[in-house]
Amino acid sequence: MKKVPIGVSARHIHLSSEHVKQLFGDGAELTVFKPLSQPDQYAANETVAVHGPKGSFAKVRILGPVRKESQLEVSRTDAFALGVNPPVRESGKIEGTPGIRIVGPAGEVTLDKGVIVAARHIHFHTLDAERWGIKDKQILRVRVGGDRGVVFEQVLARVSEQFALDMHIDTDEGNAAGLATGEFGEIID
Amino acid sequence: MKKVPIGVSARHIHLSSEHVKQLFGDGAELTVFKPLSQPDQYAANETVAVHGPKGSFAKVRILGPVRKESQLEVSRTDAFALGVNPPVRESGKIEGTPGIRIVGPAGEVTLDKGVIVAARHIHFHTLDAERWGIKDKQILRVRVGGDRGVVFEQVLARVSEQFALDMHIDTDEGNAAGLATGEFGEIID
Repeated sequence: MKKVPIGVSARHIHLSSEHVKQLFGDGAELTVFKPLSQPDQYAANETVAVHGPKGSFAKVRILGPVRKESQLEVSRTDAFALGVNPPVRESGKIEGTPGIRIVGPAGEVTLDKGVIVAARHIHFHTLDAERWGIKDKQILRVRVGGDRGVVFEQVLARVSEQFALDMHIDTDEGNAAGLATGEFGEIID
Repeated sequence: MKKVPIGVSARHIHLSSEHVKQLFGDGAELTVFKPLSQPDQYAANETVAVHGPKGSFAKVRILGPVRKESQLEVSRTDAFALGVNPPVRESGKIEGTPGIRIVGPAGEVTLDKGVIVAARHIHFHTLDAERWGIKDKQILRVRVGGDRGVVFEQVLARVSEQFALDMHIDTDEGNAAGLATGEFGEIID
C-alpha cells in the first residue's frame, strides 16, 4: 500500500527578495515561525495583506525562503472572495495568471501576475519514488476514506532528492474530503 | 453512461413556520425568489444573519417551503469561519448537531441544534432510479473530470416520485472539483 501523509495548505504567499524589501523595508528579512514538511521550507513570522477587486485578506502567511518570483496561492473559495479568477497551476508556472495588490508594514506591491490555485501534488523523495515505481511529472490518483471519501485524480508527482514524502492539497480539497493535516491518502495508481 | 447534473449548494437555511414568524414578524411568509431543481422547492427573497462563536454571515438565503425543523447547511469552510463543528449529515437528521443564533428583521432565534454539513447526495426520480437499477439509500460513486478531476464516494441515493434528477454537493466539494452548477458527473457504481 502506497500511503502518503496529506498536508492541507491554507492560503499563503511566496515573495521575491525585492518584494520583501518593498513590503518590509530595506534590510528586512523573513524570520522562521515554523518549519514545513519540505526541507528548508518554513512559515515565516511575517504576514501581508492582499487586496483583490472584491475582497481582502488581512493576514496572509509568507512561506520562505524567498523565491525568484512572488506567488499567491489561494483556494477557489478564497479566489471568489477576492474577486480574481486564477487557473489551477503547478507552483512557479505563473505566466498569464491574475495579479493582486500586496500591502506590508513598509510599503506595497502590485503584482501583474502570480495568483494561482495550486494543482494538487505529491512531493516524493527520489527513494520513495523508486520504491513505488513513480516518475517525476506522473499523474496519480489518491484515495481518502471516511464519510466524505474522495479519490483525487490529476495528482502531480514531483520527485527530488530535496523533497520529503507529502501530498499537498488546498483547504477546499481538504474540506471536501473531511481531511485535516496529518491524515493519510493511498496512491491507487 | 449514468450522467447526472450537479448543483453546487451555497450555505443556506431551512426554517420552521414558527421561526419564520419569530424572525420576520407575525403573519410573515416566505416569498419566492427563484425555483430550485426539486419540484416545489425555492430560494426565498428573505435572508437571515447567522452568528456563531467565532464569526457571522450577514445574508444567508432561506430555502422554502417551511419545514418541520429549522436547519442551517454550511460548508466545512463556513463552519470554521462560524466557529462551529457540525457533522456530515443527511438533511433532516439534526439530532446531536450544534446550534446557532439566527437574526431576522423582526427578531431572533437561538437554535439548540440544526447546523449540518450536508452529506453529498443525488435526488433520483423513481423512473431514473429504476432505469439505472439504483435503490433508495444506496451509496454511489460519482466521477467528475477536468483538471481537478475527483471521484466522490459516499454519495447517498435518494429516490422519490417527488424528485428530479440532480446531485447536490457543497461549495467546498464544488471548488475542490473545479465545478460549477450546470456541469455533470458520471455515476460509476
